[in-house]
Amino acid sequence: MKKLINNVDDILNESLTGFGQVHGDLLTVNLEPKVVTRADAPLAGKVALISGGGSGHEPLHAGFVGHGMLTACCPGEVFTSPTPDQMLAAAQAVNGEAGILFIVKNYSGDVMNFEMAAEMAADMGLQVETVLTNDDVAVEDSTFTQGRRGVAGTVVVEKIVGAAAEAGASLANCKALGDRVNQASGSMGVALTSCTVPAAGQPTFNLGEGEMELGVGIHGEPGRERIALPSANEIAATIVNAICDDLAPAAGQEALLFVNGMGGTPAMELFLMYNAAAQVCAERKVTVARSLVGNYCTSLDMQGCSLTLTLLDEETKALWDAPVHTAALRW
Amino acid sequence: MKKLINNVDDILNESLTGFGQVHGDLLTVNLEPKVVTRADAPLAGKVALISGGGSGHEPLHAGFVGHGMLTACCPGEVFTSPTPDQMLAAAQAVNGEAGILFIVKNYSGDVMNFEMAAEMAADMGLQVETVLTNDDVAVEDSTFTQGRRGVAGTVVVEKIVGAAAEAGASLANCKALGDRVNQASGSMGVALTSCTVPAAGQPTFNLGEGEMELGVGIHGEPGRERIALPSANEIAATIVNAICDDLAPAAGQEALLFVNGMGGTPAMELFLMYNAAAQVCAERKVTVARSLVGNYCTSLDMQGCSLTLTLLDEETKALWDAPVHTAALRW
Repeated sequence: MKKLINNVDDILNESLTGFGQVHGDLLTVNLEPKVVTRADAPLAGKVALISGGGSGHEPLHAGFVGHGMLTACCPGEVFTSPTPDQMLAAAQAVNGEAGILFIVKNYSGDVMNFEMAAEMAADMGLQVETVLTNDDVAVEDSTFTQGRRGVAGTVVVEKIVGAAAEAGASLANCKALGDRVNQASGSMGVALTSCTVPAAGQPTFNLGEGEMELGVGIHGEPGRERIALPSANEIAATIVNAICDDLAPAAGQEALLFVNGMGGTPAMELFLMYNAAAQVCAERKVTVARSLVGNYCTSLDMQGCSLTLTLLDEETKALWDAPVHTAALRW
Repeated sequence: MKKLINNVDDILNESLTGFGQVHGDLLTVNLEPKVVTRADAPLAGKVALISGGGSGHEPLHAGFVGHGMLTACCPGEVFTSPTPDQMLAAAQAVNGEAGILFIVKNYSGDVMNFEMAAEMAADMGLQVETVLTNDDVAVEDSTFTQGRRGVAGTVVVEKIVGAAAEAGASLANCKALGDRVNQASGSMGVALTSCTVPAAGQPTFNLGEGEMELGVGIHGEPGRERIALPSANEIAATIVNAICDDLAPAAGQEALLFVNGMGGTPAMELFLMYNAAAQVCAERKVTVARSLVGNYCTSLDMQGCSLTLTLLDEETKALWDAPVHTAALRW
């Protein structure tokens, strides 16, 4: 294993400390327990959006804490759920007295811990709702998941609901909107190489030279099948068609096309994949109205990418366009 | 070789096409010859900033075309200089009648071709000056370079001079400022893995398990030495000390600390490296007044990073802070 680290046990603390120094104008990093909060939180009268999950998917979620997106997040150890006490500390720190929305990727550990935190928060008189993201159309059930996995579509949910919360939407409306955006989103990923979890010290899985994992999860979970590496156009066709079969968009439907790098993929290849995917969208009569390309929901050093389509309406398009000021997303 | 591509010969065109679609609000991509220009160029009365070089370093340079930074850039084939006709086409397209500044990384092919383009432009009555960046303190002379290589410090030059040009600085002042920022910048990189040039189909160099190339170039050129992979703290100390020995900052001197990913490095490791480097800066009595962390001057899929320090004064600090609106840098 080759990584730019000191001791495996210190990676998360050292990385979060650096992140907090670089982005101290936007957010505050707390290490005991690990919670990242907006610098201007709590925001009185606004719903607080809290996400979190295992680390190793950066910039998800800490890179999305800021104006118009998350109010706080709880980073777990690499590929390990954060604990309920982190979530509760986040809720207490950013509670603006308008309710708290947990945005949770559908992995059993995260779901269980966020449920426990929601109960503890309710016991303390806090109003809590939860949006569970499960946009990955690749497989039903997986290594760490019952049902579909939550992957890059989570970024879209966080952006759109974040804009609504910033504008003063109620907790019920934020919850309904998050569910709606999640249901309008489909994603699927491919891996050309495995990630290497620092504590494991070796690749999570092995791919032969010339092999690709189709439908891989963001922790290296198995996908649909292991195949000979196809062309970019073939990969784009397989994924966009799988997503469109799932979402069943009407002809002319507007969508966000989001090409997400897994961490080790050159930008040049991500934009090439965008070009390929946009062509398949046109064939499927999906109108690409918005786009996003880059590393947003990664899997450590994995080479590969995922494609996400989110079907948009006028409301969600306007919320996507609303100003956002975070470490990783800004307009 | 595993890459998300169709045919090797089409990579650049397809990638630039995707890039142009995603960022069409900011810029225009022309493929024959390959030139990326600001959507609002030419800007009457403002110096036009034009950079360029081999592709494979994305987002450098196309990701920096926009308000407050580059007016145009010329992407060459992967790790190959663009041609004088690209540079001339760029100069003609964005000429605002206030002069043209070429920002050129010090590689023999780029230097030769930009010189030729400058002569051709002068013959057509255009005023052209050139800033040559050579911030890499690792080695004198290299595979493709006489003298020091231009690496990630080029991003800093483009940002600061771009802000000055946007504010209406003269060609002579932009040229002098660019030279000054370059001289105030030092960089050095490390590679944990080689990049793989698509047309070559195999890694540019081979590193053994547990080995690192110290002082690597952004095309995989050899550095100072090949050593057993040290800790992040040791790497940061070696690099920051080498840069400080070169720049000889006064005690308390303010600087920008820039941790640049080589393309295949997880964000988590880059922020950890920032944390390590900031500590060494404190030991060297350099005050980190500004920071930047991310993939900005890459080497395809190489794992590793570079550190850059740019010594700042009040003028350059204000120009660094000035608004920028490009695909890869925005505030």
